[in-house]
Amino acid sequence: MRSWEHFFSKRVVYGNGAIAKLPYLIDQFGANFVLIVTDQGIKETGALEKITKLLQGNRVSYVTFDDAKPEPNVELALECYRFAQSQQEVDLVIGLGGGSSIDLAKVVALLLSFHGHPSDYFGENLIPGPITPLIAVPTTAGSGSEVTTVAVLTDDENVKMSISDHFLRPSVALLDPELTLSLPPYVTACSGIDALCHAIEAYTAKSSTEMEIKEGAVFRGANPISDMIALEAIKLLSNHLTLAVLQGDNLEGRSKMLLGSMYAGMAFSNAGTAAAHALAYAINTEVERPHGEMTGILLPYVFRFNAKAIPQDKILKIAEAMGSDKTILNQHIATDVIVKALFDLLKRINLPSKLSAIGVGQSSIPDIAEKSKGIDRLMRNNPRTPSLKSLINLLKKAY
Amino acid sequence: MRSWEHFFSKRVVYGNGAIAKLPYLIDQFGANFVLIVTDQGIKETGALEKITKLLQGNRVSYVTFDDAKPEPNVELALECYRFAQSQQEVDLVIGLGGGSSIDLAKVVALLLSFHGHPSDYFGENLIPGPITPLIAVPTTAGSGSEVTTVAVLTDDENVKMSISDHFLRPSVALLDPELTLSLPPYVTACSGIDALCHAIEAYTAKSSTEMEIKEGAVFRGANPISDMIALEAIKLLSNHLTLAVLQGDNLEGRSKMLLGSMYAGMAFSNAGTAAAHALAYAINTEVERPHGEMTGILLPYVFRFNAKAIPQDKILKIAEAMGSDKTILNQHIATDVIVKALFDLLKRINLPSKLSAIGVGQSSIPDIAEKSKGIDRLMRNNPRTPSLKSLINLLKKAY
Repeated sequence: MRSWEHFFSKRVVYGNGAIAKLPYLIDQFGANFVLIVTDQGIKETGALEKITKLLQGNRVSYVTFDDAKPEPNVELALECYRFAQSQQEVDLVIGLGGGSSIDLAKVVALLLSFHGHPSDYFGENLIPGPITPLIAVPTTAGSGSEVTTVAVLTDDENVKMSISDHFLRPSVALLDPELTLSLPPYVTACSGIDALCHAIEAYTAKSSTEMEIKEGAVFRGANPISDMIALEAIKLLSNHLTLAVLQGDNLEGRSKMLLGSMYAGMAFSNAGTAAAHALAYAINTEVERPHGEMTGILLPYVFRFNAKAIPQDKILKIAEAMGSDKTILNQHIATDVIVKALFDLLKRINLPSKLSAIGVGQSSIPDIAEKSKGIDRLMRNNPRTPSLKSLINLLKKAY
Repeated sequence: MRSWEHFFSKRVVYGNGAIAKLPYLIDQFGANFVLIVTDQGIKETGALEKITKLLQGNRVSYVTFDDAKPEPNVELALECYRFAQSQQEVDLVIGLGGGSSIDLAKVVALLLSFHGHPSDYFGENLIPGPITPLIAVPTTAGSGSEVTTVAVLTDDENVKMSISDHFLRPSVALLDPELTLSLPPYVTACSGIDALCHAIEAYTAKSSTEMEIKEGAVFRGANPISDMIALEAIKLLSNHLTLAVLQGDNLEGRSKMLLGSMYAGMAFSNAGTAAAHALAYAINTEVERPHGEMTGILLPYVFRFNAKAIPQDKILKIAEAMGSDKTILNQHIATDVIVKALFDLLKRINLPSKLSAIGVGQSSIPDIAEKSKGIDRLMRNNPRTPSLKSLINLLKKAY
């Protein structure tokens, strides 16, 4: 057996009302001037005001950049960075919002410490040292960005580029389920199914000890710790997503989703995501749809494609985690049960289950397959190594 | 619900032969001069030579302190510190050995950064900042010290004093099961049962959200993350300890024990240990026996005492983790099953199950009860708040 490595987030603070800990946490970093990165939507929910009220009672000064956008691009990151630079010295960044706001906050915390252009860091393991301290406060249960090594930006050609680095993990993940109560059903569905996709892709990723991975690579395949955490994520997410979508004000459902999406982030930021994400990134160059809508569609098709390469006990455990009685299952049945459960879930949360429903052109399929195959950082983690032809077939089935 | 916090170790490297990663890891810290803290026993097993050979091929210089002792005292820590100070500037410490060697390495890494006397830091949360980088290489599956916040030293009155601080967590936990193959059965048994005690005490600790804990306290009661990790530890440890004791060269058994004891360390360094450890520390002032022998004896008695205060689903999950079929269990039966399984385990691994067998005087019982009750850092985590009388009764049953 070869060795494996697992990296953790340093600190998680979680609970209803946990946002009240913010001044205490900021104080622990000895920070004097804080940059809050958030978006207009969050501002409207009142979450930003909650935070600024908390800060106003304390000695810390702050400034807010509230123009974060979904699927942020490089230009926006530079704009936010220039804004931060025009202020007094920022010694702590708060990322408040969905994955996009937190990703933007990560990039700005990086640039504040090491300057340059975001594209200087596109790829893996290119950040020279610790970035400006970052407290990530997610308001969606999806990306897991509050605990991950990843920031995704769209480049000028609308290609999703990612910065992957252990130094990108926020110093503190501060999770308050109450902040997610106001999330609309569609956003809840897209972000939640993406989290489930993270969990399943991490759990079924090729085993780390079977991979040839260069030192410093961030995504390193599944290990026993990522497996433990990913399986718990699958359990939490698959059993609470419908509740969170259909009863948005159900705090139990929101709590479990927020915990589950964080677990999924912890797992995939070590094990990696795989074919579903590689395909989604490739599709994103063709159509602009929420990331989770794409990974959600792809998940059951990719799972069926991968099944024969996934260890039997893992298949059974996924089925069990998703609510099936383990005593009646063998691997073949379990695969069918999981795929059916995923399609049922998509239906219950009102998400499409076909690529044709989101405007992908059938003629783009070969191109998408080709592009996805080139994303080695993700494809190398896939339990079954896909040929170009098999990816085309998979996309046709998903069409 | 109040909020909870969970702190993680930053990095785990695990695998047979993983020790070969040491030069790469040292290099990542840019270290030039390394202090290795170990003991004579480890030197004899050849593990130290393995490491020095690895280092000799590299640019790093090192010096070895090989006089670590079981249950190290303050004087030894000062001796090791003075030795380190007499050398050129140490910029990385390697703790190689059982919990005692790693604890000693932690204290020296602390003193190298902040100076003073170990007693300056006795208690919780008294370390002002990051300590000298420390790579912990355990050669026993027991203390979990490679991932914990704790270093235990014996003071001049033979009282175990502990330093508890998040800054005490080693930078890297480097676990190589092959290094544990040479461990004799008795040491394997004592350290392994202690790890199981860590896991069970962490899993059954009072819930963090139900505790009044001051900011900065290290042991904060059980949270969902410590629960997930502790339960996995119970599973690994209870199902592999006998194998590791009876067939010391069984690498599968050794691997699972090493993983399990690390998980237990991750869990209890957040949730805390509880009555069994408080009682063991108190007993230690009366008799000198290996720590694990004492916690092993106490574990089943403390579990039975606590059972009515432990949530039913946790009792069932422990029984299931220890190998019972969950479908036949209710809480009352499950408690009996667990207690019997613990006694059976003690018997199989040749450890005593009565305090009278290890030289504790019956007349010391009231004194032990009183002393243990005063160890609030541990007792506060116990699911059932014990009266002095109930502790005396518990000790009498265990006598």
